Amino acid sequence: MDGTRAGSLVAVGVGPGDPELLTLKAVKALQGADVILAPKASREGGSVAAGIVAPHLDPERQELREQLYPMRKDPAELEQFWRDAAQEVAELLAGGRRVAFVTLGDPYLYSTFLYLRRFLLEQMPKARVEVISGLSSIQAAAAAADLPLALADERVAILPATFEDGRLRQTLEQFDTVVLMKVARVFGRVKELLRELDLLQSAVYVRQVGLPQEAIWHNLDAVDEDDLHYLSLIIVKK
Amino acid sequence: MDGTRAGSLVAVGVGPGDPELLTLKAVKALQGADVILAPKASREGGSVAAGIVAPHLDPERQELREQLYPMRKDPAELEQFWRDAAQEVAELLAGGRRVAFVTLGDPYLYSTFLYLRRFLLEQMPKARVEVISGLSSIQAAAAAADLPLALADERVAILPATFEDGRLRQTLEQFDTVVLMKVARVFGRVKELLRELDLLQSAVYVRQVGLPQEAIWHNLDAVDEDDLHYLSLIIVKK
Repeated sequence: MDGTRAGSLVAVGVGPGDPELLTLKAVKALQGADVILAPKASREGGSVAAGIVAPHLDPERQELREQLYPMRKDPAELEQFWRDAAQEVAELLAGGRRVAFVTLGDPYLYSTFLYLRRFLLEQMPKARVEVISGLSSIQAAAAAADLPLALADERVAILPATFEDGRLRQTLEQFDTVVLMKVARVFGRVKELLRELDLLQSAVYVRQVGLPQEAIWHNLDAVDEDDLHYLSLIIVKK
Repeated sequence: MDGTRAGSLVAVGVGPGDPELLTLKAVKALQGADVILAPKASREGGSVAAGIVAPHLDPERQELREQLYPMRKDPAELEQFWRDAAQEVAELLAGGRRVAFVTLGDPYLYSTFLYLRRFLLEQMPKARVEVISGLSSIQAAAAAADLPLALADERVAILPATFEDGRLRQTLEQFDTVVLMKVARVFGRVKELLRELDLLQSAVYVRQVGLPQEAIWHNLDAVDEDDLHYLSLIIVKK
């Protein structure tokens, strides 16, 4: 334990997947960290965020650790994973380490970091936390699909597609642009709703934007079961 | 005129104001351009975007030009400015030049670029246009105010505060996070609406985020007339 300086935590948004979409500020923050923590969704798989930042790190001087943030578990079990991750960070900070937590997209928009933040501030209310914004998959998908999100007085709604149909329908009726996140599990239902509202021609499905597997469908009827992925979204632009 | 290669246009989002929030991809695109076009809002003033990118350019090899996109004129007059700007770009592209248009924030989210894009594609339907996303002021404001935009199943709405009160009220009632753009001209009205909905404590006013003049108010009653600026927004987070 090094008691001579306070530890610090910086959450670094690394963007949607394309390593070139890192900001200069993110690169600088990564290079200034002692320990880089990268979340991954399963024990077997790797961390996508770790792959993006690795080329900017110096293995002689910096440690890259992966933390497990599993998906689709029961809430109590998930909470224990988040508490453990927060505990690990709290110990690093208490030891005076400069920690960077890297996350796909933007740390303040549907990111894993928000779970870590909540439990860390519970355990260590005075922890110094800085946030460096990153490009969201929403922005990268709009650019890749050549679909402006909003102009002049247009309104944009961003919401999980898993919302109940009534509210989803209302939002689709009221907004000029609707971005549906987490579409994989409810794709068929959402597609039928879009068809019913006569919005199917206005919808684009974007999978794994910025990653080598990136793909875009302007015709949702051409999307197969195998094309669904949790890193995906639908943009509806009237 | 150099007929040996096709000209190209890349719209580069330079982020909200902090030069460090440029992406690596943006820097590369800027360095590969022959002509860099930067919008400005008045004849007298300079271009904020030009100031951000200038350090990355080589004046020996590259030309930085400003284009006038005035605010608050009558629509027909505005349209003429946009047509002229598009005409200038069309000529550069016809001459085989590699053109980068720089814009604050993200080119596909309430940006000047969308006007240029519309009129350019009218004049030159086959123009090659690439878009490099940039961080939006929304994201930078959320980070600066330490206000997560969305977690888990939360819904986010982004809209101009100039919307009529009924629809503004409905959106404020229905969404977990509401980002109000263009608040300067209607600040008083919006503040009273937030008070009426008992949301004043949940609102943060952020002005010129990422620029030296950046300021944040967690108490909207403390915002004076002089504190209003067109580069500003309100985030309401329940």
